[in-house]
Amino acid sequence: MPALTTRRRVEFRDTDAAGIVHFSAFFFWMESAEHELLRAAGLHVFDPLPDGGMASWPRVSAACDYKQAVRFGDEVEISAHVAELGRTSVTFAFRFEHGGMHVADGKIVAVRCLMHPGKKPQAVPIPEEIVDKLAGFRPG
Amino acid sequence: MPALTTRRRVEFRDTDAAGIVHFSAFFFWMESAEHELLRAAGLHVFDPLPDGGMASWPRVSAACDYKQAVRFGDEVEISAHVAELGRTSVTFAFRFEHGGMHVADGKIVAVRCLMHPGKKPQAVPIPEEIVDKLAGFRPG
Amino acid sequence: MPALTTRRRVEFRDTDAAGIVHFSAFFFWMESAEHELLRAAGLHVFDPLPDGGMASWPRVSAACDYKQAVRFGDEVEISAHVAELGRTSVTFAFRFEHGGMHVADGKIVAVRCLMHPGKKPQAVPIPEEIVDKLAGFRPG
Amino acid sequence: MPALTTRRRVEFRDTDAAGIVHFSAFFFWMESAEHELLRAAGLHVFDPLPDGGMASWPRVSAACDYKQAVRFGDEVEISAHVAELGRTSVTFAFRFEHGGMHVADGKIVAVRCLMHPGKKPQAVPIPEEIVDKLAGFRPG
Repeated sequence: MPALTTRRRVEFRDTDAAGIVHFSAFFFWMESAEHELLRAAGLHVFDPLPDGGMASWPRVSAACDYKQAVRFGDEVEISAHVAELGRTSVTFAFRFEHGGMHVADGKIVAVRCLMHPGKKPQAVPIPEEIVDKLAGFRPG
Repeated sequence: MPALTTRRRVEFRDTDAAGIVHFSAFFFWMESAEHELLRAAGLHVFDPLPDGGMASWPRVSAACDYKQAVRFGDEVEISAHVAELGRTSVTFAFRFEHGGMHVADGKIVAVRCLMHPGKKPQAVPIPEEIVDKLAGFRPG
Repeated sequence: MPALTTRRRVEFRDTDAAGIVHFSAFFFWMESAEHELLRAAGLHVFDPLPDGGMASWPRVSAACDYKQAVRFGDEVEISAHVAELGRTSVTFAFRFEHGGMHVADGKIVAVRCLMHPGKKPQAVPIPEEIVDKLAGFRPG
Repeated sequence: MPALTTRRRVEFRDTDAAGIVHFSAFFFWMESAEHELLRAAGLHVFDPLPDGGMASWPRVSAACDYKQAVRFGDEVEISAHVAELGRTSVTFAFRFEHGGMHVADGKIVAVRCLMHPGKKPQAVPIPEEIVDKLAGFRPG
């Protein structure tokens, strides 16, 4: 199955005074699963550029739909795959489960950008060899 | 204009090693603007229930689209309004600007729920007087 | 050796615009290592009370000394032990290493408390069987 | 009075499943108060260097003692001053109050450092004009 699957235990930092996991935590978990997928694909989160800048993946969109609350100490299973591959952007999709129950679905759209300190990120086409490696995590 | 407008300065905790604000920060800012809107409407984030539980607004959906990066020390202007009012749910919409530039747009869908420790949140119709107060922040 | 040892990879959420791990991250890591130590000792972070409250370990003091910066993607090794055991309090001590280098030292003092919603936590003597289990992580 | 005083309302992101403010939040609040003090003294958190690096204030030590729990929505008053001024380091001290009650005391020791991407921060003597400005927030 062309998805990365990972697990993490809910830490106390991710809870809130309603007694459940704060909705923001899912975005942190998505990002960490995305980074794990990149590493599993043989890619880097940051590629240094010859001019001292770096190429990376700023996000242009992030979203999450919540089905069930999770709590401190719960073990959450996260599966991540590449849902879409555009010329400059990649869409990662995430599914969260806990104890066999569907907990949440998320999506992050990231754009390949050249980044230099104090300058606006500049979108560029995703290099062919990166496209090929990301394609390995695309279903069907 | 029936929107709440608020400002906040980007704190260092909200930055990341790419040198810009982490995408997660916008979700924290949305939530705080939502809470400010509730207070401005004469409402509470939590309403204690006679049985020891509380009524509140867990989110079922959260999303953000990013147009521009913001940085440590920037002052961000946030405007929040009620975009939709359903039987049990309310959709808050947010627009972020910095120095007159459009930075991001976000959306949170929250559901009126009765909450008790260790139990699943239970969706209920939004009480009439709360609907009336939220309607004051609905454009048009 | 009566210490709990655990590892974690630095996540992007824990970095800041200076390009290194934010100093706050070590406090989150200490807390998670403390919770792992409690679990390894056969203890719970929260013990439900018959009256609906719970017993837990609010902190009265937390401190960290930093020797070296760590960065996104680094793997940090954390060792945790019980440094002191008082009548109502326990002091956890932490040592952080990365690549064999000493990175930081931390300390958390937690007090056994009975907690009830909306009330002040009330310090109580640590029950004997909990003292015995914590003593297993005390050096010497 | 040679202290900076600031106020902030507890946000939901700063609470945890014990129903109170997470102990880590005080470190974020200290840092933001420190930055406000620097701005009030006419100083910058980061000074760009001619060679592309920057001078800043990485911390070598951070500590907090907690007296009282604070909760979502509480307004916290923070006073910050310069407690010690060394050759390369400055110690900021913080006092937290809520509703006239003493809530916590904190301390951050920061070192003046030259920072370059991927390199170890290098401690340097604090420039004379910065010492003079910081001295304005030293009691007595």
